[in-house]
This record gives sequence, structure tokens and C-alpha cells, in this order.
Amino acid sequence: MIFSRNTSHRTITSMILAWLIVFAATGTLNAEELNIVDFGARPDDGSDDTRAVRKAIQACQAQGAKRLVLPKGRYDFYPEFATEMYFFISNNDEGLKRVAFPLVEMRDLVIDGQGSECCFHGFINPFILDGCHKITLENFSVDYARPFHSEAIILGHDAEGMDVEIREGFPYKVHRGTLLFTGGQEEDGPLTTVSQGEIYGSSHMLEFDTEKRETAYLANDFYFSPVNGYPAKKLDGRKVRIRVPELEGVPGNTMVFGPNHRNFPGFVVSDCADVLFRNVTIHHAGGMGILGQRTHNVTVDHCKVTPSHGRMVSTTADATHFVNCTGKIALTHNLFENQKDDATNIHGIYVQMAEQSGSDEVIVKLKHHQQHGFDFLRPGVQVELVHARNMMTYATTTVKAAERLNKECTKLVLSSPLPDEFQPDDVLAEVLADSEVTIANNVVRNNRARGVLLNCRGKTIVENNYFHTPGAAILFAGDSSYWFEQGGVRDCVIRNNTFDNCLFGVWGKAIIDFKAGIREDKEISRYDKNIRITGNSFRVFDQSTLLNAYCVDGLIWNNNTVERTNAYPSRDKPQPPYVIEFCDNVTIDGKAYQ
Amino acid sequence: MIFSRNTSHRTITSMILAWLIVFAATGTLNAEELNIVDFGARPDDGSDDTRAVRKAIQACQAQGAKRLVLPKGRYDFYPEFATEMYFFISNNDEGLKRVAFPLVEMRDLVIDGQGSECCFHGFINPFILDGCHKITLENFSVDYARPFHSEAIILGHDAEGMDVEIREGFPYKVHRGTLLFTGGQEEDGPLTTVSQGEIYGSSHMLEFDTEKRETAYLANDFYFSPVNGYPAKKLDGRKVRIRVPELEGVPGNTMVFGPNHRNFPGFVVSDCADVLFRNVTIHHAGGMGILGQRTHNVTVDHCKVTPSHGRMVSTTADATHFVNCTGKIALTHNLFENQKDDATNIHGIYVQMAEQSGSDEVIVKLKHHQQHGFDFLRPGVQVELVHARNMMTYATTTVKAAERLNKECTKLVLSSPLPDEFQPDDVLAEVLADSEVTIANNVVRNNRARGVLLNCRGKTIVENNYFHTPGAAILFAGDSSYWFEQGGVRDCVIRNNTFDNCLFGVWGKAIIDFKAGIREDKEISRYDKNIRITGNSFRVFDQSTLLNAYCVDGLIWNNNTVERTNAYPSRDKPQPPYVIEFCDNVTIDGKAYQ
Repeated sequence: MIFSRNTSHRTITSMILAWLIVFAATGTLNAEELNIVDFGARPDDGSDDTRAVRKAIQACQAQGAKRLVLPKGRYDFYPEFATEMYFFISNNDEGLKRVAFPLVEMRDLVIDGQGSECCFHGFINPFILDGCHKITLENFSVDYARPFHSEAIILGHDAEGMDVEIREGFPYKVHRGTLLFTGGQEEDGPLTTVSQGEIYGSSHMLEFDTEKRETAYLANDFYFSPVNGYPAKKLDGRKVRIRVPELEGVPGNTMVFGPNHRNFPGFVVSDCADVLFRNVTIHHAGGMGILGQRTHNVTVDHCKVTPSHGRMVSTTADATHFVNCTGKIALTHNLFENQKDDATNIHGIYVQMAEQSGSDEVIVKLKHHQQHGFDFLRPGVQVELVHARNMMTYATTTVKAAERLNKECTKLVLSSPLPDEFQPDDVLAEVLADSEVTIANNVVRNNRARGVLLNCRGKTIVENNYFHTPGAAILFAGDSSYWFEQGGVRDCVIRNNTFDNCLFGVWGKAIIDFKAGIREDKEISRYDKNIRITGNSFRVFDQSTLLNAYCVDGLIWNNNTVERTNAYPSRDKPQPPYVIEFCDNVTIDGKAYQ
Repeated sequence: MIFSRNTSHRTITSMILAWLIVFAATGTLNAEELNIVDFGARPDDGSDDTRAVRKAIQACQAQGAKRLVLPKGRYDFYPEFATEMYFFISNNDEGLKRVAFPLVEMRDLVIDGQGSECCFHGFINPFILDGCHKITLENFSVDYARPFHSEAIILGHDAEGMDVEIREGFPYKVHRGTLLFTGGQEEDGPLTTVSQGEIYGSSHMLEFDTEKRETAYLANDFYFSPVNGYPAKKLDGRKVRIRVPELEGVPGNTMVFGPNHRNFPGFVVSDCADVLFRNVTIHHAGGMGILGQRTHNVTVDHCKVTPSHGRMVSTTADATHFVNCTGKIALTHNLFENQKDDATNIHGIYVQMAEQSGSDEVIVKLKHHQQHGFDFLRPGVQVELVHARNMMTYATTTVKAAERLNKECTKLVLSSPLPDEFQPDDVLAEVLADSEVTIANNVVRNNRARGVLLNCRGKTIVENNYFHTPGAAILFAGDSSYWFEQGGVRDCVIRNNTFDNCLFGVWGKAIIDFKAGIREDKEISRYDKNIRITGNSFRVFDQSTLLNAYCVDGLIWNNNTVERTNAYPSRDKPQPPYVIEFCDNVTIDGKAYQ
């Protein structure tokens, strides 16, 4: 608990001011616009520009500058001298991070890259925005010299394992029977009991279609227990035999080795307000592209998530993702492609009520390890109490006091006694009343898994988008047993979108899919409500399910068109176009569906 | 840098006080002696006593209690509700740690276990003392339910690999071709892209003689690049084939799988003064047993480091270890056995001068990753400047200002300009003038590697100890190229010790060994000075080197006896009893040695 958000803010701010006094930055005082070059950045020479950024940010804060420009060029960022901060990043991995652009409690600033490329080297986080207001990031791209995933061409497989040829640009070694991906540097001294080389740990694989540049038809994730590398034998050249008999894949296709952590998301926006991304391209990130948490109003407009240098994969997880955010989240006119997870997921977080310690006291627990440290239970926050078994809210109350025991557990005093309905594994979440989502005019394609996950209680509009996703294009989720993500839409419109040959993979039962984690009381639990699906165009390659509704109250489906293609082979068994289970008030093209 | 020691202290202290007000502890106010049972601890029932400790410590601090007693019994500690703090621990691994006994800025306290056993479960650190004065820990033992290393019996090996039978008490699994050691729990849900089970990662192996309960004769460490587990195939029962052809070992011997991190040292004593360990037994720790850093006066008296439950290994690294400590370090009447590294190492730390940024300004860098975050360069600290190539000190000066850039790099302003002799990879260390070491009446045996590493500038006495170590019993080290440990004795007496069949392993060239990392100017560099070796008894099983002196000025060897044994087979080639290279003023039994 010593890293509570407020503590960090105060500490960082005071230290930044202290540094500023001791090591005064150059540049004109009180300028409205500052130029990174004036602080020592040198584009296009490969040298480390991290210290220039640090000085420039300090100057922006001290002088109240409104713009920081990076004259067009390539800038390079290394971890060696970068600012360090411990950060909990929801749905990514926490840690003590080196940060190239640490924006802490900044106000009213535009960072304009003027078309620049920002290239990151090694174990460094590009941007963390913490406690900022009114920030615009625009006109630059983010990439890594060595991505956190790796890629290989499948040569063949048999009962012993799979032979692959690892692509250039993805350094590796085979040492004592294990394939490990590396940064390409020499070992730093002899191996000892405390050796730690620069290893790009990997623990899962997924086959991509090399020609189509998308996940292979019906390919499954291939998961390992938490390993750093794979049992293997070195063959000629860049060829390696991976000694895992279960591996399968089409020769010529690309095997993508996913990183075992999400340590390096591109942009973290934490406890901020009014943040705009405009014309920003994320070629790669070792985690999500943009992660917003506890933030009010985020717009991502005319941005791209797309791989560079012929790589198959862009970000190694979702392109964007928003947790316990309020106000308006707008994703407009973006391209989200080849990221190794969904285009977006907008949700809250459930904590499990682990132990009642008084009539109004309960210890709550963040259950998923990538939610640990997620700090939202502050005095005054309105919360809902939810039965884990049926996902039904049975009370709302307010947090009166919170004592954080550690990153997992917090002791709460509530403003009212726990009701009689309370049960030990129930969950609790913030009531995020003021929230709104617009997802419009985006292209989502060739990524792993789903398109967009809609889990916001406020008005949600999804329109004029193009989806070509291997899983569900749109998923309504929410559960209290594994991911502990709070969902349940109340007002959702899906209109005028094109669903182009989606569902050629394994991530979903329908192009528009509902899968709230309701285990009991399905007859009465209605998690998602008031959904209109209209004017959309579905292009399908076989008789797959268009809509799989589950525990929904109020769904209208009309004026949608379906066109048959031969983009992929048909699957064996034709599926019903609509699957409606445990729903009320569903009409399909004007006809009540029972 | 947001985790500077002072910041943490302030934050933790204020939070502890705040908790105390909100969640007042039970127990009598203003009692001189508090009893852990009064705060909810329940011995011998297996339940988690962590919260009772937290309350008791808060009460001790609030009431100024002088003693905290744990009535004799077994207490259990789990990470779930434990206090959390980010801690940099020299020569162990940093991290955000759960701590069962977090003693922060305590004064004048005895914790008396009255013969109790403290059993730790999973990923939890037993004791961290930070900024404490006058603390006594006595009369209890520390152990882990599942150790951080694992053990197996060697069945045989061939060109494919080695078959082993993993001992009970060391849970494991073989998943998709990799042997992983585990906590024995079921997987927490299905594997996904973000899975992380409770894995006891391992990256090196060492063969032990099962009968003799010591490292096998001339056994080598078997190192892997940073892996979590080993390529393997499951056989019957608890048998596993490790698919690494180079593995060797005697059937029936014990293969010990070392943990790939030192995350869980037993006792960390950081920035404290006057700390006494008395009658404390450490059966196991996932790292060093006792680690002191930047601490003044530590005594370890009548303590034991010894394995429990028939395990081969006690602590997975050094029994004790002291870094940049001052005052007196006394190790007396202890048993240090079966730890997986040295009995003690008492040294300073060199930082590399990575970049000169002004006539009196330099960026220094902590080079070894297990020294990262080691915070000793504060204004007023006297430092020596040392050429890396020859380890010669060419200037001393004082730190005027220090700006910590991150856990590796600190920008220093010195009180005088860097001399002309300065060279880019030179190193810098604190002048630890006020320091003194006594190592007396200890038994050191059956551990990996060496006995004691003597690297203290103050008076050092090693007397009446018994050593049976596979490597050098006494090593004078210090280097500026890999470990970056500062050494160089100035006044050292080694007398009346028994060296019983040491050097049956591979860790050293002589029973008393010098290996300062001097690469150039050997003719003039004299790193260790003024050593008297007298009245010791050497029992040797072959003609091995008793003394290997290197770059020493002033060494007297007299009145030592040598007795021949047949404890082990002789090695092929007899060695000279004394090897003296690049030394001045060495006399062997009254005769000048040239």
C-alpha cells in the first residue's frame, strides 16, 4: 500500500520540482510552445533521447507550456536513464517501470510529433499519463526495435514436434534444450546462480495465415504453463525443432510466440480527464496499445494500430481497453489490425467479498492478478453488491472507509450494513453511472479473438464500422468467476456496420455474442438490456450464428442483410442464425422471438 | 526513484499510525511486554497469524513496548493479508514483497519466540527490518512448508538426458515438455494468454552426495539461461526424464534444483543499528538467511542455518551476508550448514562511473542487477575512486549532491573535480572506515561453495571456527567487472581454526584463497594487506594448495599444522602448498617468500 496513487503523485511532483531547481532545463522560460530539440533530443542519429524528454516535460510543467513539439524525424528511447515508477496497469502487468514519457499531473498540454517516429529499445514503457487533465497526443508513431513477441515460419510437424524457421528480426538462442527469445545481445558475463539475460519470455503460440495476414482458419491458441521458452533443439541456420508433440500448423504459415507478460503497453492513461489521441500510430507494444483506467473522457481518433517491417502482429494484446472509466469514450475513424487481442473492451471491475468482519465491514479481494493494485474503492464511491452465482445486483451502498492491506485485499467499511442476501463469494463493483461509448467508422481486422467487448452501462453506439475478426465481432461479456470484469449494457445501438466474414476462428459462438457468466437463476437474471441491432450488413462464408443472445431483456433485430461468400471452407455443421436463450422481449425483424 | 528509503519510511509510518487510529489494536496500553496471542495469533492450529503480527507490531510501536513474546508453539504465515512493501535487497532480488514481520523504524524491541516455530507458506518474506534501532530477535525458528528449491534422486543418465525421482514434499508437473516445480495447488482456472500459476521457477542444478549430505565430490554447478523449468518427459510415479544430454551425476545422489530468484531471504536488516540475533534457527529461506545492508552493528550469536525435514538444503543462498555495513559485525557460536552458498560475505559495493557530465559531475551505475536500487550515495558520504583495470584507489572525495535517475543510475556532484587519472569505466565506492568483523567459534560445513568471504577494511578476526567446505574456506575477493563487490582487507587475523578436508569441490584454488579482480598493473597493485594466518589446523585429503596469495602486501603464515586424511580420492595432479603471486612482504613460517 505504500504506492497509493496519491502518494506517488505527491512524491513525483516534489521530486520533479526539486530536480528542476538543481538541474535546470534549458529553453526559453514561459514559452507557449517548447521544442524537444532545445532540450537535447537529436532526431535520426540513433542516440538516446530519453533525457531530453525528461527535461522537456519538467520545463512544460514549470513554465505551463501548452505545446511540446517533436520536429519530424526518428527519435530513439532506451531504458538506461529513463524515469522509473511502480505502476499497476489493469489488464496488463504491474511493475517497476522505466518510462520514456512520464506525464504526471500535467495540465493542458499538446504533444505534437509532427509525423515523427518514436522507436523504443528494450524494456521501456513509452507513455504513462497519471493524474493528467486535457492532454492531446498527436501526429507520431510508436514502435519497438525488437518486438516482445516473436515470429517463425512453420516447416512441418510430426509425432516429435514442429520444425520452424525463426524470422530475421527476432533474435533467439537454444540453450541446454530450451528455445529462448533474446534481445540479440551477448550474455553479460558467465552464467551463475543469479544470471538474468535479456530474455523475451514466451508462453503461448498462435498460428497465423502468412498469405492472408490473419489468424489461421480455426486456429487454436496453444498455451503453456508459465514458461520462459520451449523445449527445443537447434537445427541448421535459423531452424529450430520445438519438441512439443501436440503442436500443429500448416507449413508456410507463421507461428507467433506470444510474450508471457504484458509489461509494456503503449499508452497508459490513469486517473486522467479529457485525453485525446489523434493521428497516432502504434506499430507495436508489449501489452495493450492504449489502456485507460479510472479516466474521464478519452477520444481515440484517426489512429492506427498496425504492424511495421512486415511483422505479422502489432500490439501483443488489445488495441485499446478501458477500465472503470467515466464520461465519454469515443473511438472514431481508427484502424485496428493484427493486434493479438480485441480492438477494445470497456468494462468495470468486480472485487470478491472475501471475508465479512463486521455488520458493515468486509475484506474485498481483487481476484485476477492483472487487476491487482487497481485502486478504486475510495470513501464516497457508490458500489453495487452482486451475487456471483447469478450476476444479479441485490443492493447498492457507499464506501465509508477503505484500508488497503496489500495490492489484492482492501478492508471496507460500508455506509450501510451488509444485507441478509450477502453471501461469502459475492462480488462488488463501482456504479459507473456517468459513462457513454461511441465506436464509429473504425476498421477492425486480422487480429486475434474478438472485435469489441461492450460492457458499459451508459449509452453505447457502435456504427459504421467494418469488422473482419476471427471471433465474435461484438461480445457482451461480464463475469465473476475468472476475469471479474463488470458488464451489462443498458442502452446499446449497433447499426450500419459491415461484418465481413467474421468468425473464421474459435473465439465466440456468434458474430454478435453474449456470454455473461451467469451460472444459476438463468430464468430470472437479465444482465444485458435494451439492445437495437439494425441496418448492418453480414457477409458470411457458411451457415454460422449471427446472434447468440443469453440472459438479455430487450433486443430488437431489424433491417440487417446477410450475404453468402466463399471466403473460407464451410464448417461441418450448419448453425441456427439466431440462438436466443433465457431472454425476454426479443424481436427479430418485428417478430417476437420465444 | 519514488521508492527512496526516506520516502518509504515516512509513508509507511504515517500509514501505520493512520491504521492504528482507525483499526485500533487490542491489548493493554503501555505494557512493557506484549503477547502475540492477545492480538489474535493462534499457535498450532495452522491458521494464518499474519494479521495478529501486524496488529502486535502496531501496538508495540504505539505503546513503546520493549518485548513481544510468541508463546512456544507453531505459528503459520500466509501472504494473503500480509503487509506489502517494495524493497531492494542487495545480493537478493528486489520486488513488491509481502512481509510477515515488517519492522519499520522500531526502537528498542525484543521479539522472543520462546522456542516457537514460524512456518511460512508460499510467496511471503519472513522479516524485514528497515530503519530500526536496538532490536533483538531470539528463540525461534523459521521454515517454509514448501521450499523454494527442489530435490530429486538421480536414477541414471545417458546420451538423451537424466532420469530422476522427485522427492516427496517438492510438488511439480510436466506440462507440454517442461518440468515445472509448483506449490502443489490446482491451476486457477483454464490457461489463457495471461496465465500465471504458482510456479517455483528453477534455472540451475547441483548434485549432492546423499549419504554424506554435502555437495558431491568435484560436482559442478549446472547453469541454464533464465528458464522457469527444464525440458522433460513424465515417466512413472514421481519419475521424470530431464531431456538435457549434458547432465551427469551418480545414481543415488541428490540433484538439487536451485530457484531462479532470491526473492525470499529470511531476515533483511536495512539501514538499522544494533541488531542482535540470538538462538534463531533458519531451516529455509528462498535467498540468503540474514542479509544486512547499510547497518551499524549486527551480532549473530548461537544461531543455526540448517535444513529441516530431511531436506538436503537449508537457505538457497548464503547463510549471512553484509553489504556496506559499519560498526561491528560479529558471528559467534553459530552453525551454518547445507546452505546453497557461502556462510558469509562482508563487502562494499562499487558503482561504475558511466558518464562524466561536468568537471565534478558523473553519472554512476550499479552494474549487477542484484545491487540495483542500493541507495548509499547521499550527500556527505566519503567515496574512493578506483581504476577498474587494477583496482587501485587513486583519489577520495565526498558526495555533494545526488540525483537518483532510476534504480541503476545516479547523477553525482562531487566536492572536488574528477582528477586527471579518471577513466570512463572506473568505479567508486563508499569509504567504510569504521568497520570491524569477528567470526569466532562457528561451524561451517556441507554448504555449496566457500566458507567466509573477507572484504572488510577494518579489523577482521577469524578464530576457533571449524570449516568443512567444498570450496575455499576463506576467500579474499573484490572486483569491478562482474560482482562489483568492494573488498581489500587491511588488518586480518586467521587463527586457531580447523580446516577439515575442505576444497573437495570446484569453488576455489586454495583453502585460503585470494582472487581480487586485478587485470592490469599486477606488479604494483596490492589489494589485500596485513594478514596473519597462525595456529590453524589443516586436514587435507590430497596435496592441495593451502594458500593462494595474489596481489597481497604483508602476509605472515606460521604455526599452522597439516594432517593428511583419506576422506576423498586424491585429484590427479598434486598442487604446491603455497602459491604466492604478485605479493610483497610474505613470510611463511618465518621465511620470506619471494
